[in-house]
Amino acid sequence: MQKIITFGEILGRFSPPNNLRFSQATSFEVIYGGGEFNVAASLSNYGLDVEFVTALPQNAIAECAMRTIKSFGVGYKHILRQGKRLGLYFLENGASGRNSTVVYDRDDSSISQVQPGDINWDEVLDGATWFHWSGITPALSPNAAEVCLEGVRAAAAKGLTISTDLNYRKKLWKYGKEPKDVMPELLSYSNVILGDVDTALFMLGKDKLDPDYTTDVEAKEVFDKVFELLPNLKTLAMTYRNSVNASHQIIGGLLYNEGKMYRARLNEVTPVVDRVGTGDAFMGGLIYGLCEYADNLKKAVAFATGACVIKHTIFGDVNRASKQEVLNFIESDGSAKVDR
Amino acid sequence: MQKIITFGEILGRFSPPNNLRFSQATSFEVIYGGGEFNVAASLSNYGLDVEFVTALPQNAIAECAMRTIKSFGVGYKHILRQGKRLGLYFLENGASGRNSTVVYDRDDSSISQVQPGDINWDEVLDGATWFHWSGITPALSPNAAEVCLEGVRAAAAKGLTISTDLNYRKKLWKYGKEPKDVMPELLSYSNVILGDVDTALFMLGKDKLDPDYTTDVEAKEVFDKVFELLPNLKTLAMTYRNSVNASHQIIGGLLYNEGKMYRARLNEVTPVVDRVGTGDAFMGGLIYGLCEYADNLKKAVAFATGACVIKHTIFGDVNRASKQEVLNFIESDGSAKVDR
Amino acid sequence: MQKIITFGEILGRFSPPNNLRFSQATSFEVIYGGGEFNVAASLSNYGLDVEFVTALPQNAIAECAMRTIKSFGVGYKHILRQGKRLGLYFLENGASGRNSTVVYDRDDSSISQVQPGDINWDEVLDGATWFHWSGITPALSPNAAEVCLEGVRAAAAKGLTISTDLNYRKKLWKYGKEPKDVMPELLSYSNVILGDVDTALFMLGKDKLDPDYTTDVEAKEVFDKVFELLPNLKTLAMTYRNSVNASHQIIGGLLYNEGKMYRARLNEVTPVVDRVGTGDAFMGGLIYGLCEYADNLKKAVAFATGACVIKHTIFGDVNRASKQEVLNFIESDGSAKVDR
Amino acid sequence: MQKIITFGEILGRFSPPNNLRFSQATSFEVIYGGGEFNVAASLSNYGLDVEFVTALPQNAIAECAMRTIKSFGVGYKHILRQGKRLGLYFLENGASGRNSTVVYDRDDSSISQVQPGDINWDEVLDGATWFHWSGITPALSPNAAEVCLEGVRAAAAKGLTISTDLNYRKKLWKYGKEPKDVMPELLSYSNVILGDVDTALFMLGKDKLDPDYTTDVEAKEVFDKVFELLPNLKTLAMTYRNSVNASHQIIGGLLYNEGKMYRARLNEVTPVVDRVGTGDAFMGGLIYGLCEYADNLKKAVAFATGACVIKHTIFGDVNRASKQEVLNFIESDGSAKVDR
Amino acid sequence: MQKIITFGEILGRFSPPNNLRFSQATSFEVIYGGGEFNVAASLSNYGLDVEFVTALPQNAIAECAMRTIKSFGVGYKHILRQGKRLGLYFLENGASGRNSTVVYDRDDSSISQVQPGDINWDEVLDGATWFHWSGITPALSPNAAEVCLEGVRAAAAKGLTISTDLNYRKKLWKYGKEPKDVMPELLSYSNVILGDVDTALFMLGKDKLDPDYTTDVEAKEVFDKVFELLPNLKTLAMTYRNSVNASHQIIGGLLYNEGKMYRARLNEVTPVVDRVGTGDAFMGGLIYGLCEYADNLKKAVAFATGACVIKHTIFGDVNRASKQEVLNFIESDGSAKVDR
Amino acid sequence: MQKIITFGEILGRFSPPNNLRFSQATSFEVIYGGGEFNVAASLSNYGLDVEFVTALPQNAIAECAMRTIKSFGVGYKHILRQGKRLGLYFLENGASGRNSTVVYDRDDSSISQVQPGDINWDEVLDGATWFHWSGITPALSPNAAEVCLEGVRAAAAKGLTISTDLNYRKKLWKYGKEPKDVMPELLSYSNVILGDVDTALFMLGKDKLDPDYTTDVEAKEVFDKVFELLPNLKTLAMTYRNSVNASHQIIGGLLYNEGKMYRARLNEVTPVVDRVGTGDAFMGGLIYGLCEYADNLKKAVAFATGACVIKHTIFGDVNRASKQEVLNFIESDGSAKVDR
Repeated sequence: MQKIITFGEILGRFSPPNNLRFSQATSFEVIYGGGEFNVAASLSNYGLDVEFVTALPQNAIAECAMRTIKSFGVGYKHILRQGKRLGLYFLENGASGRNSTVVYDRDDSSISQVQPGDINWDEVLDGATWFHWSGITPALSPNAAEVCLEGVRAAAAKGLTISTDLNYRKKLWKYGKEPKDVMPELLSYSNVILGDVDTALFMLGKDKLDPDYTTDVEAKEVFDKVFELLPNLKTLAMTYRNSVNASHQIIGGLLYNEGKMYRARLNEVTPVVDRVGTGDAFMGGLIYGLCEYADNLKKAVAFATGACVIKHTIFGDVNRASKQEVLNFIESDGSAKVDR
Repeated sequence: MQKIITFGEILGRFSPPNNLRFSQATSFEVIYGGGEFNVAASLSNYGLDVEFVTALPQNAIAECAMRTIKSFGVGYKHILRQGKRLGLYFLENGASGRNSTVVYDRDDSSISQVQPGDINWDEVLDGATWFHWSGITPALSPNAAEVCLEGVRAAAAKGLTISTDLNYRKKLWKYGKEPKDVMPELLSYSNVILGDVDTALFMLGKDKLDPDYTTDVEAKEVFDKVFELLPNLKTLAMTYRNSVNASHQIIGGLLYNEGKMYRARLNEVTPVVDRVGTGDAFMGGLIYGLCEYADNLKKAVAFATGACVIKHTIFGDVNRASKQEVLNFIESDGSAKVDR
Repeated sequence: MQKIITFGEILGRFSPPNNLRFSQATSFEVIYGGGEFNVAASLSNYGLDVEFVTALPQNAIAECAMRTIKSFGVGYKHILRQGKRLGLYFLENGASGRNSTVVYDRDDSSISQVQPGDINWDEVLDGATWFHWSGITPALSPNAAEVCLEGVRAAAAKGLTISTDLNYRKKLWKYGKEPKDVMPELLSYSNVILGDVDTALFMLGKDKLDPDYTTDVEAKEVFDKVFELLPNLKTLAMTYRNSVNASHQIIGGLLYNEGKMYRARLNEVTPVVDRVGTGDAFMGGLIYGLCEYADNLKKAVAFATGACVIKHTIFGDVNRASKQEVLNFIESDGSAKVDR
Repeated sequence: MQKIITFGEILGRFSPPNNLRFSQATSFEVIYGGGEFNVAASLSNYGLDVEFVTALPQNAIAECAMRTIKSFGVGYKHILRQGKRLGLYFLENGASGRNSTVVYDRDDSSISQVQPGDINWDEVLDGATWFHWSGITPALSPNAAEVCLEGVRAAAAKGLTISTDLNYRKKLWKYGKEPKDVMPELLSYSNVILGDVDTALFMLGKDKLDPDYTTDVEAKEVFDKVFELLPNLKTLAMTYRNSVNASHQIIGGLLYNEGKMYRARLNEVTPVVDRVGTGDAFMGGLIYGLCEYADNLKKAVAFATGACVIKHTIFGDVNRASKQEVLNFIESDGSAKVDR
Repeated sequence: MQKIITFGEILGRFSPPNNLRFSQATSFEVIYGGGEFNVAASLSNYGLDVEFVTALPQNAIAECAMRTIKSFGVGYKHILRQGKRLGLYFLENGASGRNSTVVYDRDDSSISQVQPGDINWDEVLDGATWFHWSGITPALSPNAAEVCLEGVRAAAAKGLTISTDLNYRKKLWKYGKEPKDVMPELLSYSNVILGDVDTALFMLGKDKLDPDYTTDVEAKEVFDKVFELLPNLKTLAMTYRNSVNASHQIIGGLLYNEGKMYRARLNEVTPVVDRVGTGDAFMGGLIYGLCEYADNLKKAVAFATGACVIKHTIFGDVNRASKQEVLNFIESDGSAKVDR
Repeated sequence: MQKIITFGEILGRFSPPNNLRFSQATSFEVIYGGGEFNVAASLSNYGLDVEFVTALPQNAIAECAMRTIKSFGVGYKHILRQGKRLGLYFLENGASGRNSTVVYDRDDSSISQVQPGDINWDEVLDGATWFHWSGITPALSPNAAEVCLEGVRAAAAKGLTISTDLNYRKKLWKYGKEPKDVMPELLSYSNVILGDVDTALFMLGKDKLDPDYTTDVEAKEVFDKVFELLPNLKTLAMTYRNSVNASHQIIGGLLYNEGKMYRARLNEVTPVVDRVGTGDAFMGGLIYGLCEYADNLKKAVAFATGACVIKHTIFGDVNRASKQEVLNFIESDGSAKVDR
């Protein structure tokens, strides 16, 4: 039985209702989410045993985030209640030719102020089989990066599978270091990575390739570049995303493992209900797929891609789709008729 | 002057606002509708004299349904006020690749508990020219099926035109009988039927044909199968629906009468505002078309199809479009410019 | 440094929320806007110095309109506070094949009752470089037409650039005169006109041409017809709009100046968030473009078109896009990725 | 069997939600109401046969008002569909020490532009037993006053009971006449009047008395002054209202008939949900009480007062209380326990 | 360490927003609650270990109720997932002199259809110290009454403390039995009862006393009547409620134990935010008080009363107040100053 | 002509709608306010010339605060656009016996990170006649305290009137200093102070007096203690507030100047719409009163008290009442009748 630990941040997300711009809003919809939590919630929805590890302050707003964590059945017993504030971000939803915008207000959040040693990794990882982190955490602060490294090392020492979503966010990474100063050591432990090749190379301090994924041969060639740099890497996956405009996306998925390339079908998504968290939905589907369909990797990447497609239709950061709904989608033609 | 009776159920419909899933909703939009009532409301909007016959309990929520009926100018003087509850259903609206879902909670609704003899059909049908029912009512309970048969027989005896929307709902039909046990006798009286050929054959206990409608010759061939089985049938119509995804539909219409096939143009509908009740809008447009454009059946099916297309853009079960708006649409190119 | 005066009306706009029809609404969203004010707000958003001239009554609802004017940083010191009511209009938003509808309730609004001499044009235009008006104002009442002519003459006498949006609204023009009785003299002073050629010819009392804009040669030929009739005209621009349906528009732009035709790329807009004010957004972008990119008219028309495209995604009458956002859009491929 | 005609205006009422001020609102709640219509709706709720007579324009917003009229089961067959606009008013709801404010925008509404002769009073009053009008109508325009007089005379000629709510509104009466120029003749036909004595004297061109109602003797003395001036008056009623603040009212009622004074108990109302239409609720209850409890005038005034009290708890202009609810209230101690 | 089992029903509650009447609502607020669940949620909020036992169907709406249960940290592992529907009720919130109204739609809910033997009481009660049920459950159906009796007997056999809220609901009890046919045996096992004396006597088939609680002597006298009839009763408590009107309540509490009477102070509550669930809040506070302040019963009844008072200010069925908030309230003067 | 500078912070305020608790909210109402800005907005509403001085970051959310500042007509040209975040706070609105709660999230806001020298006080104060600050600013950070002192000294040097609202907030003051370390020097320059005597003594490092204000003699005695400690003080004012519960307040005001005590009448406020900013409303009314009614200090304190009372009925931080509305209130009996 799998037991999965995800480590990272959960934030308050404030967004104007409907398609209003920030300057028009007189109220904000509020939900609580964050890359690594969203993955945990997906996995719990699919029926896996999952714990989310983070730090949250002791106040009434952080309690709302706790309530969200509990409502998804995600384990929370290792969450530190310390530090001074819950990280926040503001989201203006785009439409058609107007892009969505994120304004971060997560400086000095509890997780970014966590101290090395605060988390008892031995206890946290006890009995676990899988450890997941993303490139957002080391972008927050030197402390967060160091604590992340503690976790990764402890997980590797205990023989857990380690997965990583590269999640490069330009507006973070403000504390004086660049990804290439921090990520190579962290990524060296990863067994599963989600992200496109150029982002991986950039984080590893290498040059961009502008790869072409048209044929499997082309795709393998560039994927192999990443494998050469990361000794423990077994599986590299990426979302294929053609952004026609903010409301219209074409979504597919690729998975590369032991020299074989697996692809999921392309799916038209229009209109997009909520773009945020769709990558996390892919990641959640990927971990689930690798655990449950280890002998059918085509199904694993199809599951991850289907999860990602459905998430585009769901408000909030989290993919509120059950395992059965994802399976129904990937086995259907996508016509989505009324079920009555 | 036409006077139309529709017989069936009106329910409370509860749906999460916007595109929320059930699990996210903290409020439900509430409207009152149901297949046969929706047809009545359409006809009243077009200016016809129409009575809705059903049973509703004596309580404050049923009063809300009554108020909806009155607000459309539909006649209500034959509605029985008896039984214990208003039927309900819950609707989760889909988007793109996520389908809409209906959860029925209509067991023991007043109409399903109606007793043979409760409705004085002689009085109800007095002065009427047209009787409409749908395949939903006999699916509810043995009582409802029997009372429906009472009505159909009385209408036939008085020489009314009888129309039927097949409306097959898999999640109903739970009381131990199958459509083929009940529908053949009921349908034997119908003069006008709305529904696709395979549903008709299934309800009549025959095998599926997987018909092809590409050419009129192919279409006629399969339509004729239905006519062979139903001695009183004069007009068979169907909605042509290509469901690209839950938010994107392509809609046309066919009508077959005295060996001639009439088609309406195909219309792209995206985005869909509300999918529910679009078949009822077609049915309402069809009855109106057959009454008013009896000598121009191409216009009749165009009117029905136009009504169906416009309904996709209107929130709620009922097609809140006037006769003039439907005519404007079918005479336009669909560019829908601002009227100012 | 440019200083721009726009003259016209600001109204209260009441619209059912979401996609509700009038008959379903239990509340109306309320915003304040109007063609010439929307242009002023756009220009203020881009950083120009702009004054809006109108008449508003002394009551609490008109104060709300004043507050909107102030909130955009538009100058308001020449606004007359007189007359008896704020003009209103009701907007039902369409979707797919259902068109939007406007119900005007602007009779006897303060601006329509303004008397010749009420506005001290000498003071208003002092220090100004540009005067903008639209074809809506002379459609309101004989008084409004006469005061508009006062303004145009005063602006011409002071050597200001004069721009006009033709803005033909069939539902206005009810006071007994037709555009051809009033517009020729008014337009004779215009240096910049926004509008299609057939509307221009109609307002000048000439016959329709049904022009074809496929090639520049064809387009120039018809544009030249308008220049022949208007001695002071230097620049004629038009929005190219292909209305697929109410939710799906394809938008481009043309600008003709000193015998040269400049075109902006075509842009797909779907879904449309708010169609109203998109022409005003083009006009605002055009004035800005002509002021700032006078030596690069291709950029000027691209800016105007980009502003128009973005406005389709913004709720309300006003284009709440900054100069930088418009520039980002016209330099991008329109994929509108999340900015985070 | 009573058949009641009420004559007057129905308007669109726009109010900020919750307790927002005009300057804060981004949406307005919209309902349709007006003094004489509110009375009609009350009477229909109590089960009487009632027709509302007014003039409404032919447009989509007026259709919303029509739909409201129909939804209360009030007769509408004599409503003229002519003229140019629906009257509107804006309501800012007060609270505690901040008063509610009304901004009228009803100039040139259809009813104010009605012409003498437009209404066929013979047809309207055929079969009727009661005619109701209020002091708002003659305040609107000379035309409205004249048409009201036509109606009053026709009703008197046919022997109907005539009732009047004085309803003095300072912000109306702007067309050059004062109440004393118009009201004396109109009121001379009234058999039942609702209003306080000083308002009656003011409308009849007499001096104020600042009456004291503490004892029945004092009250009778001042009531008699009004009877001296109005030959046909039989019943004079008034609401006793102590306005502690905008959210806290103490409400009672008095009725004077054939020299006898009848009083209803005082009721504390806090908080007030909606103050508007509470006088109309009293009027509706009064007419009902005089019709149904003619031999028990203490019950009649208790019914009117109870209706007024309950209306304070109901959003909108109309008293959505049934006859049974009013009776329950006047027979209870007002503790208003949950009914479950 | 206490472990508490509560047994009963959780329902969907639909209520018009703000103070709207049913007939005005276009949406319903939806929350999930029910007497015995509300008690469980209170206890979980105070930090106790609590399991809720009920039956819920397998559908998407019941999942929403499950999500609510989980979100309060209440145990749910013994909930049966069977039967056909979630019980519903509709709540119209009153104000001032208008009472709140409940319309039940809970026939055939899963708990009412539960069969004797369906619940494995041995497993459910294993390790538990306290069993709570209320008079609502035996009112639902013969089955529910019988299963409740199974639970009570099993709890008594295992030596658990048994508490009961009498909760008499006139609109339930429709299956042919009266409380006196069912309740005496059930109540004979109760150690703690919440309810007024006349309700207790009525349920036990005895005559009403109209007791007076002014002095402790008077109160004891009537309380003793109940103790005479119930051999296992140790503690009898009641809420003292003076309902000034629907928005204004005066709340106190009494507790009688081993011949001693304990009283909590009276508290003015105005305005009432939500009246429903205030009795359950008292019950939850009472169980907590009896467990934690067993040696200070004055504090126990003060805690129960304080919880009840605070619940009046909280939307929904459940008392979302922490233990600390209740303690702060009972130790304060009730002035409720801003905490900042 | 007065020109007033207020210096301090504007924050984003997020509050659950209606009376929801934090744990229930799925959206937050958002407004922008802060003690010193609220004063500026009040003064601008009354017609005075006022500039608000603060620091705000360069991001889209801070733009919303800017837009609020502009919409009140408050001057903003000296606002620094620097630093990293907009200060935020979360407000849970209480009711009856449940208190409101504030959760601050304003650490590292731009104003708290401002550096000495950042503000060019010479330029800011040029032409000004009055400088206002409050005890919140020095509570934020050592920097903010130092910059505040710079401003106070510069204002004193230029001979401006200096006013201060003591505004003690226990949850602030976290940077290692106590009020008595910082406030004595700052307050030594103040000419006008708003606050109660015990807060003043506490901030000046003196012992509490628990003063009694029943008679003027008693009140003067304790007020004199404060004057002894502050050489430049001319006017000391305080709000008299009796908090019955969170929804019910009794409000009066005192003003002490040159040995004379002036009192405003007591006012009952129930229900309270919004408690936050009522002290700022008093302060704004006080400055206005001292400027405009310098020779009638009874009117000055009545104006301040009336402004405070009205603010309790207005949503948001800012007192959206005009000068005329405040005057109407203080001249009325508070019955707050509908103005129509």
